[in-house]
This record gives sequence, C-alpha cells and structure tokens, in this order.
Amino acid sequence: MKYKFLSNIKSPDDVKKLEYSELETLCEEIRACMIDTVSKNGGHLASNLGTVELTVALHKVFDSPRDSILFDVGHQCYTHKLLTGRFDRFSTIRTENGLSGFMRPDESVHDPFVTGHSSNSISASYGIYKAKTLKGDGGYAVTVIGDGALTGGMVYEALNNSGSGHRNFIVILNDNKMSISRNVGSLAKHLTVMRSKKSYRKFKHGIKVFLEKIPFCGKFLSDKLFKSKTMIKNAIYKSNLFESMGFNYLGPVDGHNIERLVNIFNIAKSETRPVLIHALTTKGKGYGFAENAPQNYHGVSSFDVEQGAEFGSIKTFSDVCGDTLCKMAEIDKDVCAITAAMTSGTGLGEFSKKYHNRFFDVGIAEEHAATFSGGLAIKGMKPYFVVYSSFLQRAYDQILHDIAVAGVPVRLCVDRAGIVGEDGETHQGLFDVAFLSTVPGMNIYSPASFSELENLLLKSLNFDFPCAIRYPRGIENSSIDYRTTDNDFDVFGSGDNLIVTYGRVFDNALVALDSLENTAVLKLNKIYPLSDDLLLEIKKYKNIFFFEEGIKSGGIGEKLGAKILEADISVSYKVTAINNEFVPAATTKSSLQKYGLDTQSIINTVKGE
Amino acid sequence: MKYKFLSNIKSPDDVKKLEYSELETLCEEIRACMIDTVSKNGGHLASNLGTVELTVALHKVFDSPRDSILFDVGHQCYTHKLLTGRFDRFSTIRTENGLSGFMRPDESVHDPFVTGHSSNSISASYGIYKAKTLKGDGGYAVTVIGDGALTGGMVYEALNNSGSGHRNFIVILNDNKMSISRNVGSLAKHLTVMRSKKSYRKFKHGIKVFLEKIPFCGKFLSDKLFKSKTMIKNAIYKSNLFESMGFNYLGPVDGHNIERLVNIFNIAKSETRPVLIHALTTKGKGYGFAENAPQNYHGVSSFDVEQGAEFGSIKTFSDVCGDTLCKMAEIDKDVCAITAAMTSGTGLGEFSKKYHNRFFDVGIAEEHAATFSGGLAIKGMKPYFVVYSSFLQRAYDQILHDIAVAGVPVRLCVDRAGIVGEDGETHQGLFDVAFLSTVPGMNIYSPASFSELENLLLKSLNFDFPCAIRYPRGIENSSIDYRTTDNDFDVFGSGDNLIVTYGRVFDNALVALDSLENTAVLKLNKIYPLSDDLLLEIKKYKNIFFFEEGIKSGGIGEKLGAKILEADISVSYKVTAINNEFVPAATTKSSLQKYGLDTQSIINTVKGE
Repeated sequence: MKYKFLSNIKSPDDVKKLEYSELETLCEEIRACMIDTVSKNGGHLASNLGTVELTVALHKVFDSPRDSILFDVGHQCYTHKLLTGRFDRFSTIRTENGLSGFMRPDESVHDPFVTGHSSNSISASYGIYKAKTLKGDGGYAVTVIGDGALTGGMVYEALNNSGSGHRNFIVILNDNKMSISRNVGSLAKHLTVMRSKKSYRKFKHGIKVFLEKIPFCGKFLSDKLFKSKTMIKNAIYKSNLFESMGFNYLGPVDGHNIERLVNIFNIAKSETRPVLIHALTTKGKGYGFAENAPQNYHGVSSFDVEQGAEFGSIKTFSDVCGDTLCKMAEIDKDVCAITAAMTSGTGLGEFSKKYHNRFFDVGIAEEHAATFSGGLAIKGMKPYFVVYSSFLQRAYDQILHDIAVAGVPVRLCVDRAGIVGEDGETHQGLFDVAFLSTVPGMNIYSPASFSELENLLLKSLNFDFPCAIRYPRGIENSSIDYRTTDNDFDVFGSGDNLIVTYGRVFDNALVALDSLENTAVLKLNKIYPLSDDLLLEIKKYKNIFFFEEGIKSGGIGEKLGAKILEADISVSYKVTAINNEFVPAATTKSSLQKYGLDTQSIINTVKGE
Repeated sequence: MKYKFLSNIKSPDDVKKLEYSELETLCEEIRACMIDTVSKNGGHLASNLGTVELTVALHKVFDSPRDSILFDVGHQCYTHKLLTGRFDRFSTIRTENGLSGFMRPDESVHDPFVTGHSSNSISASYGIYKAKTLKGDGGYAVTVIGDGALTGGMVYEALNNSGSGHRNFIVILNDNKMSISRNVGSLAKHLTVMRSKKSYRKFKHGIKVFLEKIPFCGKFLSDKLFKSKTMIKNAIYKSNLFESMGFNYLGPVDGHNIERLVNIFNIAKSETRPVLIHALTTKGKGYGFAENAPQNYHGVSSFDVEQGAEFGSIKTFSDVCGDTLCKMAEIDKDVCAITAAMTSGTGLGEFSKKYHNRFFDVGIAEEHAATFSGGLAIKGMKPYFVVYSSFLQRAYDQILHDIAVAGVPVRLCVDRAGIVGEDGETHQGLFDVAFLSTVPGMNIYSPASFSELENLLLKSLNFDFPCAIRYPRGIENSSIDYRTTDNDFDVFGSGDNLIVTYGRVFDNALVALDSLENTAVLKLNKIYPLSDDLLLEIKKYKNIFFFEEGIKSGGIGEKLGAKILEADISVSYKVTAINNEFVPAATTKSSLQKYGLDTQSIINTVKGE
C-alpha cells in the first residue's frame, strides 16, 4: 500500500519535518497500515492503535537512537517500527525471517533492548541510561510503560533505584485503563484518582486564586500554605505513588493530542529530576471493533477488517483447562484459580464469573501469584495457578522457596508449553520442563490431548504434593485415537527401536509409526520424576530415540540418558530437542519441522536418514 | 539459663497474663537469652534485638496460631520462637536437627509459612488470609516486614493485590532505617519523610484549629477543606505510598514502647480496611556493639559477648572477588559492580567506596539487578552482578529474557554456591548450576581456589557472552597446591577410574587420590557447556565417578551422562550429588559428609564400599 506521508518516512528525522496537521494525517495512515497488516499477520492490535500519537510525538521531540526509546513488553512498538525505517518490511511482521512483533536490538539501532515480558523496561532503560552517562554519551532515556505493567513488582524495584537525582530519565505511563485483562488491584484505583486530578500546577493555581479572594487574610493564608515548605504543600505535591518514588509527576495529558504531548515532552526534557509523564490513551483507538472490545483485540489472529475478528470458535487446551476447573470448583469447594492478568488467554473467563470468590487475578505478578498460591495451599485450599510457560519463569524462586520447601500442593497449569509460534523468542514455552524438574518434590505431567488434560486435572484434586500440568498453545493435535490411562507411561507398537516422547509431539510419533518398521512409541504421561519401571521397559529395546519439544539442556532426554547410563543398560541413544538456542518467530508447524519434531523428521531420524 | 519470666512462657497465653512492667523485664530476659545463644551458635542478632517489644506486643494482642503472624525473611523471628513454646530448645537454633534460624511450619503451628528469602511475606499472608476467609476460620493475618524488604518488588505486587476491602489484614512495617546493607533508593527517602510526619488525624486537627482561628471565613474554609471530599483532603490523606496502595496507614509508633504498640494494634484490629502500621525500631537495641554497628551484627558467627564480634580476619572467596573487581575497575573504566543489598556480604565494601560511580546497590531486587545489568552491558559497560546463589533464583527469567536473548556479556559472580551451612534449606546454593545451564549461551565456571577465581574474573574482562562464575561460601579449601590453568578441564593422576568434579569438592577428590589406586581426577574448570574434548578424555577410562555439590536433577552429572550415552562410549557411570531434596541446616562439613562429598565418602564410593 502507498501512503502519502508514511511511505516517505525513512527515519525519525522525516517525522520532525512534518507540521501538526500533516502529523495527524500520518497517524491516520499508520492506523490504516497497522490494521491492514495485523488483519493479515495477526498481532497486537488494540495496544498499538492506542499509542500512535504518543509515538509520533516522541519522535518529534526526541532524537533516536541517541535518545533511547524503550517500549515495555513491546505491545505498543508498531508505530515506532514504522517511523524508524521499517515501513518497507512491516508486512513481514511476525513471520519467519520477518520483523519481530517486539523490540529487537538486532533488528534496528532504534530498538535499545529486547522486549516481550512485562514490567522490566525501566530497569533496562536505567542500565542504558547509566551506561550512557558513564561513557559520556549524553542523550535521554525514555521508557513507555502501560498501566497494566505497573502491577509487576520489577517496576517498583526500578523506580526505587532510579528515582533520584538524575536528569534525562523519563518514564511515560501509557494509561489506557487496561492491561491485557482488565486492570486489577489498588493501583488501578489509585490511577483512577490521579486521572481525575488536575496537575499540581493547575491545582495549586486554583487554590491560590480561591484563597486570595478571601478578604483580609487571603493573601497571608495563600503565602502561608504555598510559599514555604509547609506540610500541606508537601502533602499535595507528594500525593501520588510516583512522587513517593522520587519522580517528578507531570500530567495527566491527553495521549491523542500530539501538540500537547510535544509540549509536555519538552517540559520533561528540561527537568532536573527523573520525570514521570501520565498520558491517557484509548486502547483500540480508531478501529471501532477494537475500541469497543479492546481486550479481544489485544492479541489477534488474522481477521477480516470489515467484519471484525471472530473469537472462541475453536476449542483450545486453554478452554479445556478453564472448563474442567469450573467442573472441579462445582464439586470441590476448595478449588481456587489464580491468574496473572491472563483471565481470557488462560480460559478462565467463565470461572472468574461463576466462582468469583475463589478466582484471583493478581495482575502481571507471577512471583506474587506463586507465593500467594503457596499461602492458600498451606491452609488447605486447592490453588490452580494457570500461567503461560514463559511467564512462569518469573516465579522460579517462589516455586522453590514458597511452594517446594514446605511441599504444599500448589497445582501449576502451564499453558503455552512448547513452541508458541509467531510471538517468537521471548514467548516460547521451552524452559518449563528444565527448570521445574530442578525443584525437589515437583511432579510434572504433559498431556497430549484434551481428554488427558481433563483427566489429569481431575486426578490432581487429590494430590498432596506440588505439580505442574503443562500443555501446548492452541488446538488438540490428535490425528489418531488413543486411550488416556492413569499409567506413568504407555507403549504403542513393538520392535527394536523405541521412540520416547511426551506432550504434543507424541501425536506426531504415533503417526510416524505407520511409516516405520520394527518400532514402538513410549509416551511419557508423567515426565518427572521418571518412573522406576521405565528402565525395565527401556531394556527391551536396542535403539532409543528421544524427541522433546523443549530445551535440551536440563530436559527429560538428558535425565533419561543419565539414568540409562547409570543403570548400565546397553542401548544406543539419541535425543532430538531444541539444541540450546532461542527459537525465533515462525509458525508452530514450521518450527517443529525445523527442530526435527514433526512426523517426517521423526521418521527420518529413526531410519537414520 | 533460668529466667524469671521467660523460662515460664510455654505459649503466647502466658504473655497475655503479664503486666506491662513484667513485660519489660521479659524483654530484658529475651535480649539476654538471644545474645547468649547467638554468641554461641551465630545467627541474626541485630534485627532480632530490634523487634523484641514489637513481638511481645503482638502476642499480647493477637491470638496465634488462630491469628497468623508471619515475619518476612525471618531475621526477626527469634522472640516469636521464644514466646511460642520453643524456649527450651532455643539453644539448638541453627544446629543440625535443632531449631531453624527462620520460620518453619514443620517446626511449630505458630510458624505459618517458610521464610528465608525477602519480600514475599505479604503474598504468603494474603494467601493464608484468603484461605482462612474462604474456609470461614476467621482470625487476623499479621505480617511483619522490614523497611529493607520494601525494596523488593513482590511487596508491591502483594500490596496491590491485597490493598482493598478486607478487614483483618494487617501489615507492620518494622522500620529500622536499614536493610542488610544500608537502605538505598527513593523509598528510603520517602520513609524518612513519613517518619517525621505526624499522623493524618493529628495533622488535620492542627490545620483545622489554625483555620478556624481566622475571623469571618475561618469556619467556612475549614468546612470547605475538610468536610466534603475535597481534593485537598484526598491529597493529604492519600499522601503516602501505602495509602496509594489502598492501606489505612497508622503511625509512626515507637516500636520499643509496648503499651503504645498494644494500643495501635488494637486500633488496627477494629479497622474495616487493610492496615499498615509504621513502627520505628532500633536495630541492635540493647546490645551496645550491635546498636553501634548494626550491619556488622546482622548475621554473625559465634563471638565473645564482652568483647564483641571480630570481623574480616579470615579471607574468603567474597573478599577475593571484591579485591579482584577493584583491581579490574582500576585498569578498565567499563567495569561496574552491582549488588542487591549485599555490599558487605559479597565483599564489595572497598569497591563501593573507591568506584562509587560504577557501584550500584539496587536494594533487595535481584530481578531489577539482572535486567539493569543487561542494560549496562548492551551499551558497552562490563557489569559484574555479585549475588548469592540462592537469591539469584529470583532472576531466572531476567537472565533468560534480558541477558541471554540478546546474548549480552553480563557477568554473574555467584557467591555462596553450594552448601552454605547453618542457614539451612532456603539459603543453600544448590540450584544455580541446574538453572543457569538451561540458559542458551550461558557459560559457567566453578573455581576451586582463590587464585582460580581471580584468574577467571580477569579473563572475563574480554568475554563477549554471558557468564557465571560461582564459588563457595567462606574460605579456600586448598590442602594441596595445584596450578590454575586456562584449560576447560585438567586431569590429575591416571588409572582406570576417573573422578570427575568441580569447585570445592575437587580439593576433597585430590586428597582422596592419595588413598586410591588406579584412579585419576578430572577437574572441570568450565562446567557448562561441556568441552567437546571431554569425551575424548572420558573414553580412556573404565569407570566414571561424578561428584557434584549441587542438585542432581539438571546438574552437570546428568548432562555428562547423557553425552556419554549419546556418544556410545562404554563406561560405568555413577553420579553422587544432592539427590533432589532440600538440605537442612548443619555445618557445611557435616552436610558434605552426609551427601557423600567429603574425602572419605569419595574414597568409599570409588572403592565400591
């Protein structure tokens, strides 16, 4: 598509040349381009539509890459990509070898840091800022962070560390009144109060005028209250969270008014303290469907622009988890569900409505969620913390320290386990097996089908130990019917060769069996700890082929290998897994193929081709 | 020792029977008992001396275990132990099979949750509180948390989640103006302002009296400002961090005045919102040496009560790290040191003074520290994040996401790696190898001696990849001289048997060699990734014995085993490591023996005895 202004923006310098009226047209073009592209490639739409003017104003005022501009999570970095020389490649976003859906320093000098996970941006920016200062490079460090990300604790660690004495450190709070799910907790309330407040300057002015109108004592009162460092001044001036953390608070400002944004950014540039600018934006702005239901258009698959996207038509593992937890909550009053700002993504929508008292959306706060679950469990509740694999990485210490040391039966429902597709490196669920299997007392299950997931969830009601039930993103991959059992493992077929695998790859292995002779498949149901009987079964074969949709180092393939060697069983052994690298964006199908985990690759590996 | 009151306290009920004057004597006895015991067993002294009255007042007002009382970290739980039926066993604290130095639910019904790591207590208490509420059990949930712990982000995740609508949820901020190191960041400043503020009620009263004295309009003004929900009221009332988070703020209160504490606790009990009580205490209170230098008496080894403790007389791995980093900072202007509130513990005292600009104490904030280091590294600085192994668990996601995806050369100096001794389960450094070796691109080194640590640190100046250099707590274990090399591994001796090990255990293996025939020792210098040449060496032997001071699951022993099997090398293989359990408090020597890692155990294992 050819756009009047957007097509000619080769770098932020081209933004600086445009008049305000032209910038408004540019914003329209950016929205059209984003809607067009996301409708084809899928992606994060609503959040990106909300930050068009904000980003245009940033590039009008700041000088990237000399000034570093970092977007938390990166759900709002599409405009930034379009303005920093990536318009020509924008149609490749979220495709194999295309642009990333997030910020990537290896993609552009205008992307100062890797983004993907929430709430870490101020920490990264502060590191960048300090390095620039120490090296005498100068320039500003600007961070754009959404209100949802404020529920993550790292933000406070970073504000605490960065909130004093520095100029040139600017945080922009993109307040769209909504995180991925609707914002939760007391911070959301605090922001609501702040939104309705006029800025301190205006407020102070209003009070002064009011007081000075009072006959006789008005002037005296006004002076008394404002001219010296009275407690009242302090109280008003320090009256929000960010001032408490040492930041100079500016705002709120209309995040869709470029001129006002430019003005406030210029004020921020001249401040001698770190600054927090509170910008109010509308998620989904400019696309009716998204504006009306922004949570549905947070992350979307391809859709018809005129008709809007369709949702929930295909049943996923997340739906099965949510539905089963509802059934369980009905029969067992101790069942609780916990999510870290992913009610809809984890399939907990219905649970949240039906069992409101036992449902906890704690915000983007996986650490807290794990420990909170530990607290629930130690007093006899049955907490199910439903969380994406890659985000659970945040709670490793809490799982060890607050769940496993006491051995309390917290149930981790690990969604998006394995390859996730187009979100790329930062969202792949490839580490959960490796890190969870270091935790003493942890039991890990990896269902391959909907019915197996349901069966495991029901079984877990009676567990008195911590467990993780992990399942892939999306739909069931069941080409062949097989019976779900309560065994730790099941064997299909017979021969000298044995394929060992678990989870989604099992289905590929089962299909491969049709093209292989002298071969059996062993499906691990419980993947950690490995059953003692497993070695007795392994002994029966000559060649073992282990396929694992996860990182090789620390994976089950390694554990089984070491066990076989220690038991002095004489077999040949080959592990196919993700060979200790990060997996970039591509379709899940393509990635499984690339890493040797699809049916044809399994056949080839066993045949030694 | 026999104490008039303390010896007769069998449960908190006995505290409730005492008069205030008797309680004061009780506090003196508690202090005497703590000083006496810690001078023999070592332990956390200064923080415990600071919370004697606070804890006595808690047990006077609240009804444990019906009301749960949780101390963050547990550095202040000794008085609680003494008052909850554990006086008789108190002399066993921090010894093998004795009382834990932290809270342990399996030790007493009065310990509601495992403690050890910082800043997680409000999360745990909120889980406990919600479980109690859902089960209709009633009672209060009380959390005591130090000001240092406020620098940890989990606190905000928990405050955000818990700060609305609940009664019976009480947080007590034990503000002793100091974390383990001195408190850092803007929060410390905010607390300083709060300390000097009068409570809102008093403040409001003062302003009202002032205004109402004004002729004619005074009453009108006062009404205008206070009777309706004016902005000014909101501004004053919501003027601190905790009110922003939805908590009703009470205080500050003198944390050494039992009667005042009792009064404020009773007010808190009757509130209909969550309450935060701000108590001011003096760390080290009642023991001159500790009061004057509380940071030195945070955690101490045994000492002479009359003389005070001696510090820094014995050189440790931490000292070598700190000294070497100083040398490096001198020759390389890009070297930075980062600590998460452990300046002294990690040996960075001198660095912090000499290279102030390049030294960052970020608070108890390992997540932020890792990402901040990533930011420094991506802009060309050479950050060394010096951190205890068990606390680094907190930064697993940040290491993956903010360091490894971009592959930036952050250097992790992992102190207290391996068994740490008397602090027990929550502080053992047994997981770092397992979780760090899941990180693509991470390089892990495990020096066995001071000179090897120094050599590795110097080498790391030129690394362009992320690395971890891990070393044990305390002193060098070098009975035998050996030369530090730049090889990935070194072999000592020859024979059919090969002992493979790394780090501190290497020294035990080398000593064992004297008592073993036909045996060699392979010392891994770089423990991950394993060198390709390693298998060529392994091939030369018949029996491989791997000894690892770390968790077995995910350890290097497993990795090497799988590699050997995949390479189809025919050897017998046996791994001795921590067999997937938590290691309780004991001397390091005793634990090494228990888990088969001392010299005699190595000899026995190789001999097959």
